[in-house]
Amino acid sequence: MNKRVVLKTIGELLILEGILMILPLIIGIIYKDSTYIYLSFLKVGAFITLLGLLLTRINTKGQIIGVKEGLGIVSISWIVLSFFGSLPFVISKSIPSLVDAFFETTSGFTTTGASILTDVEKLPISMTFWRSFTHFIGGMGILVFALAVLPKGVRGDVNVMKAEVPGPQFGKLVSKASITAMILYKIYIIMTLVLIIILLLLGMSPIDAMVHAFGAAGTGGFSNKATSVAYFNSPAIEYTLAIAMLLYGINFNLYYYLLLKKFKEVFSNEELKVYFFVVTGAIILIMVNIFRGYNSGEKLFRDTLFQVSSIVTTTGYATVNFNKWPLFSHVVLLALMFIGGMSGSTAGGIKVSRINSLFKIAKSEVIKIMNPDKVIFIRENNRPLKKSVLSGIKAYIIVYIFVFAGIFFLVSFKEGDFLSNFSAVAATMNNIGPGLGIVGPDGSFAAYSNFSKLVFSMAMIIGRLEIYPVLVLFTSNLWRKR
Amino acid sequence: MNKRVVLKTIGELLILEGILMILPLIIGIIYKDSTYIYLSFLKVGAFITLLGLLLTRINTKGQIIGVKEGLGIVSISWIVLSFFGSLPFVISKSIPSLVDAFFETTSGFTTTGASILTDVEKLPISMTFWRSFTHFIGGMGILVFALAVLPKGVRGDVNVMKAEVPGPQFGKLVSKASITAMILYKIYIIMTLVLIIILLLLGMSPIDAMVHAFGAAGTGGFSNKATSVAYFNSPAIEYTLAIAMLLYGINFNLYYYLLLKKFKEVFSNEELKVYFFVVTGAIILIMVNIFRGYNSGEKLFRDTLFQVSSIVTTTGYATVNFNKWPLFSHVVLLALMFIGGMSGSTAGGIKVSRINSLFKIAKSEVIKIMNPDKVIFIRENNRPLKKSVLSGIKAYIIVYIFVFAGIFFLVSFKEGDFLSNFSAVAATMNNIGPGLGIVGPDGSFAAYSNFSKLVFSMAMIIGRLEIYPVLVLFTSNLWRKR
Repeated sequence: MNKRVVLKTIGELLILEGILMILPLIIGIIYKDSTYIYLSFLKVGAFITLLGLLLTRINTKGQIIGVKEGLGIVSISWIVLSFFGSLPFVISKSIPSLVDAFFETTSGFTTTGASILTDVEKLPISMTFWRSFTHFIGGMGILVFALAVLPKGVRGDVNVMKAEVPGPQFGKLVSKASITAMILYKIYIIMTLVLIIILLLLGMSPIDAMVHAFGAAGTGGFSNKATSVAYFNSPAIEYTLAIAMLLYGINFNLYYYLLLKKFKEVFSNEELKVYFFVVTGAIILIMVNIFRGYNSGEKLFRDTLFQVSSIVTTTGYATVNFNKWPLFSHVVLLALMFIGGMSGSTAGGIKVSRINSLFKIAKSEVIKIMNPDKVIFIRENNRPLKKSVLSGIKAYIIVYIFVFAGIFFLVSFKEGDFLSNFSAVAATMNNIGPGLGIVGPDGSFAAYSNFSKLVFSMAMIIGRLEIYPVLVLFTSNLWRKR
Repeated sequence: MNKRVVLKTIGELLILEGILMILPLIIGIIYKDSTYIYLSFLKVGAFITLLGLLLTRINTKGQIIGVKEGLGIVSISWIVLSFFGSLPFVISKSIPSLVDAFFETTSGFTTTGASILTDVEKLPISMTFWRSFTHFIGGMGILVFALAVLPKGVRGDVNVMKAEVPGPQFGKLVSKASITAMILYKIYIIMTLVLIIILLLLGMSPIDAMVHAFGAAGTGGFSNKATSVAYFNSPAIEYTLAIAMLLYGINFNLYYYLLLKKFKEVFSNEELKVYFFVVTGAIILIMVNIFRGYNSGEKLFRDTLFQVSSIVTTTGYATVNFNKWPLFSHVVLLALMFIGGMSGSTAGGIKVSRINSLFKIAKSEVIKIMNPDKVIFIRENNRPLKKSVLSGIKAYIIVYIFVFAGIFFLVSFKEGDFLSNFSAVAATMNNIGPGLGIVGPDGSFAAYSNFSKLVFSMAMIIGRLEIYPVLVLFTSNLWRKR
């Protein structure tokens, strides 16, 4: 790996992060936080901007971003940005422990939404804003953002985008990666602005509207209310957010096709169909399981829709404490946690398209066992999938299982119970946020040790970047000079 | 599939099962069970022998056992033999419910060892013997047994053996399948006789010695004592059984090589090394986790060795209630439940060789992500694995996950808690027996509904036959005429 290219790119990102800290600073001034609170954004922002400027002076003339550099840039910068992003929490003493602040910021950028805070409503407003704003930044990918707004000096930026955008195949919309990034971000920003306006019209305060729009947009799930979305006690807000979350779980390329009026491409999209099939199926199964105890069919449907859409998109908002639902609903929710949203969306999880392909692989294998000489093509959108893509999907799930098991091992050495730890690993590695048991919607990760919190933080980054960029950090192969 | 070949083979197996029922009949007479108890073996034995004779009259001249027939014969005959094998329990009222008796017999033949009995010591001696004897029959494979002892009329028996012997690759020892079967069974019988003699010398009664030798040989785990092996309170017996279980978890082909003095082939065997690495690693991890509360290092080691060897070989005997161990030990045990023993052994689970290959696939994938053009060979025993074998292993694990999830769904609809149901599915599908929670070593499957018991019974057969033979039963492709 060419380290100079990596360092320079990280420098650019630090400048960007420094500039973005102006927003919480302004919010802090407007909403009259204590001076030492909002000044922490100024201090950290100025420091990392300077650090970034220093790093961007590195000469990278004629050097390109190859596959290795793409992987390295993405994983290292997610760790570095989470680290520096956590400093305002620490120096303002809003979250005094560095490990806790790192966990919380990583959870924000990776749009996980898991929290170590036991009383979220005590957080100053500028801190609340920054915490939720990391969801918005992380949702579409921080490097995709950089690609969209920064002047490009180095060739090979497509390797960065490939490493950061989720899904088994990377579909560029147009030939230049930076223009693809720009298009995606425009759609993303407009959708989020519209959502903020709707939430304002439904009676939310500006801060509440921004916090919850960012949380839905990034499919993150941080709320500034202890009882999450249940606080607002408004069916209209619940329906709005439920539908918004589902929309952010859709591949953003499809919205671009909508803009181009390529309706056929959108509505015949196989992954979209499977996504709606999964959502509808889960809603029906859970409604059948929990209908006792409900007087109102509308409330039963709304609660189920909201929790399903929150979990399948890996957002993690809650309007009821699903920890108290019966086992079968837990099993359905756990399945949704692993399935996740669509490729190229802001959602986490294994992704609908991979699960769909895996199901077809399993089916074709049963046929092949009976007819060993038969050649079977696995199709998606009526086109046979390339062998390399299929083999990549198979390998991904195997790597996924080993990493999942490894994380489960690490966090189970000292603490927790089976359901809590299992769902905590699922909730962090799939970037959902709350799990079941002690990490359920009414709990938090506060009780875990610092060691486990760091492991969970890595699990969130591993999940957000789909494993490989982080794993390659542990290979000597990456660190070798070109 | 050619149904006549299938029916005829099932007929042969029924005759065999009928003849084998003479043994519990004799035991019943010797140990003075009530007449109506042991006569049930005579009644059922005579009936199925006649039924078998009828079926063997089917003309199959010139027909061969192809891949489909091999799969069909194996899965159908395991279901049929479990059904008829359960009838003595039912008509003697030892286990009055047909579903319970079917569960218990399936658990026996598949060498699972899961039980619906709440008081195993109340079972008449002939019934106890038959229950444990099914472990011995099922351990090496009932069709392998048939191949070894029956005169062969139909060509293609290798397809039966392939479908029944566990592991990703089937290694025939000699060119004829029936002779391979004979060699394997001779080794199996001699090992078991030696074990019975040792257990007698250590002070067990003849019945106790046979029951526990059968349980270890088949890696089944049925005991005739409510407290399992802990009842004997004898370190020598515990060490003997712990080592015996580990030996039965080894690929039997290796014993054949030992007899041929091919020592190098045995001790350089990669799967064997990984197997011992897994066992040693698990023992160390658990000892570190549970050492508090022990005064004696020897007892700590013995308890850990016994439980690890019992679980990794999927036997299921217990000398302590590991349900009360801390979470981390549960996680280690659960990992062992999935890993299982070696291919070509009597143990269940996913098998060490598959896990080993999967780990290598995961490792190579990380390298490949960084170097997309690099060609990487995955080796086992220093020889590159064939592409078809690798692709089969990858597909197997994917099918495994879907089937596991499906079974977990089915049994979680009405009852149980997360840990109990999860470990119950793991314990049946990997043919272990006891799990954790309500199905722990001090519990049983008695509390589950009839529906769940039938699902678990299918899970045991699915696990024992490594999924495909059972899954193909649900395809129309199998039932089509040749």
